[in-house]
Amino acid sequence: MLRFLVSVLVLASCKEVQKMAKAQYTVDSARACLVRQEDTIIFALIERAKFPLNSPTYNHTFTSISQIQGSLLHFFIRNTEAIQSKAGRYTNPEEIPFFPENLPPSVAPYYPSSEFLHSAGALININKDIWKLYFHVLLPMFVASGDDGNYAQTAAADLTLLQAISRRIHYGRFVAEAKFRETPQIFESLIRAKDRKALMKVLTLESIEKMVVKRVEKKAMVFGHEVSLEHVKEGTYKVDPSVVSLLYQKWLIPLTKNVELEYLLRRLD
Amino acid sequence: MLRFLVSVLVLASCKEVQKMAKAQYTVDSARACLVRQEDTIIFALIERAKFPLNSPTYNHTFTSISQIQGSLLHFFIRNTEAIQSKAGRYTNPEEIPFFPENLPPSVAPYYPSSEFLHSAGALININKDIWKLYFHVLLPMFVASGDDGNYAQTAAADLTLLQAISRRIHYGRFVAEAKFRETPQIFESLIRAKDRKALMKVLTLESIEKMVVKRVEKKAMVFGHEVSLEHVKEGTYKVDPSVVSLLYQKWLIPLTKNVELEYLLRRLD
Repeated sequence: MLRFLVSVLVLASCKEVQKMAKAQYTVDSARACLVRQEDTIIFALIERAKFPLNSPTYNHTFTSISQIQGSLLHFFIRNTEAIQSKAGRYTNPEEIPFFPENLPPSVAPYYPSSEFLHSAGALININKDIWKLYFHVLLPMFVASGDDGNYAQTAAADLTLLQAISRRIHYGRFVAEAKFRETPQIFESLIRAKDRKALMKVLTLESIEKMVVKRVEKKAMVFGHEVSLEHVKEGTYKVDPSVVSLLYQKWLIPLTKNVELEYLLRRLD
Repeated sequence: MLRFLVSVLVLASCKEVQKMAKAQYTVDSARACLVRQEDTIIFALIERAKFPLNSPTYNHTFTSISQIQGSLLHFFIRNTEAIQSKAGRYTNPEEIPFFPENLPPSVAPYYPSSEFLHSAGALININKDIWKLYFHVLLPMFVASGDDGNYAQTAAADLTLLQAISRRIHYGRFVAEAKFRETPQIFESLIRAKDRKALMKVLTLESIEKMVVKRVEKKAMVFGHEVSLEHVKEGTYKVDPSVVSLLYQKWLIPLTKNVELEYLLRRLD
């Protein structure tokens, strides 16, 4: 048992990293957290891909039932977020809701939340863009067509994945704040000049981005192949690893940087 | 894109296996589904282990707030199950709720559910036992002590894992029905004699059980190690693989067989 606890602590999750760094997130601790979030995102992609598209989940016109307005997914996520809000999810500034309107307050036991972020940028919420991107672009890339009737399970898998993607992208606020604190002298004049281009250049570390894209492809291979005792079936994966690397390269990394940029532009307000 | 779709179909999830086998689950298709469920369970274990114990989630006495009776987790799961029920989760006979009392009916689009199970055993629900086992025995085995304040996220991870474990164990009903249909002559006299011991002997395939226990340990190693481009860090895992194999050996496999047995004892009613 002791051995087990030690291994858990050695592989301290990003939540632990955050906790340890609560007084002071650093660029390194934020980066370690993003690495751990990759696993969560890939697990969630694999779990969503268990189900085919299941388009009735997203159909805005299916409901003759007055109880539900919008799609089944809207109903599902709006109501689940309300429960999670009551349970305190959004007292953690790392969590951003998709439907922030009229969320009930937390009734969970008090726990002091991090005050690391600068207030003007803390509330950046691009979930509306993430929502559209997810349904119109991403989802069709990694799920098979078809309908197996598991609409509630599909909605639950969508929510888990959407939350993981959203957390990753909005984590850009913490990355940006950590970068700003490490070298304020680099950022301050660019922020005052509202020089988006130059700021984006500072925020872009091509070699690291390339490494992330390669690593998530490898993770998708490792987590998504069929593990058996006899032999490793290479070449068949639960989610195409090249789709996962594309997802990061084309959307997750750029959107995270956009959040970093928007955060920094508000940093001296 | 075509290559991707092919790989998804080749690795057809157990939902697909079930769909293909909807008219007739077989022992082989049920077994393939249990293998796929192992991945889901291990992902969920890893995701729950991201958080420490977070005991306020389970504290029955924390709420001075009248809105919530019982623990925060009770509130969370009871209400989330209600939403999922409305979204149609429990129209799929593979899904069994933890709080079946007063669940609202589904308003989801109609999809014909499998009528594979014999009605007398279809409603077997040992979730109360699974609940107790989970909180008193299993959880302390794979989470670190501590409190990081993420109670809602913890409850969400608990629910996902509890649902995965419950689905696996109650899948014993499908396994039992498939076994019964393949060789009714073996089962009928034993069922009539209510010979539990002999039935359990028929249901027990030691070599397969040993293989499952070994395979889940391997999967926990594969899915739970820190994947990096440079080198593989062996020996540190997000959830101790020996705990995962113990979980299967001591609880998941025996409880699944108990469900198989109870199902068969009702099979000729």
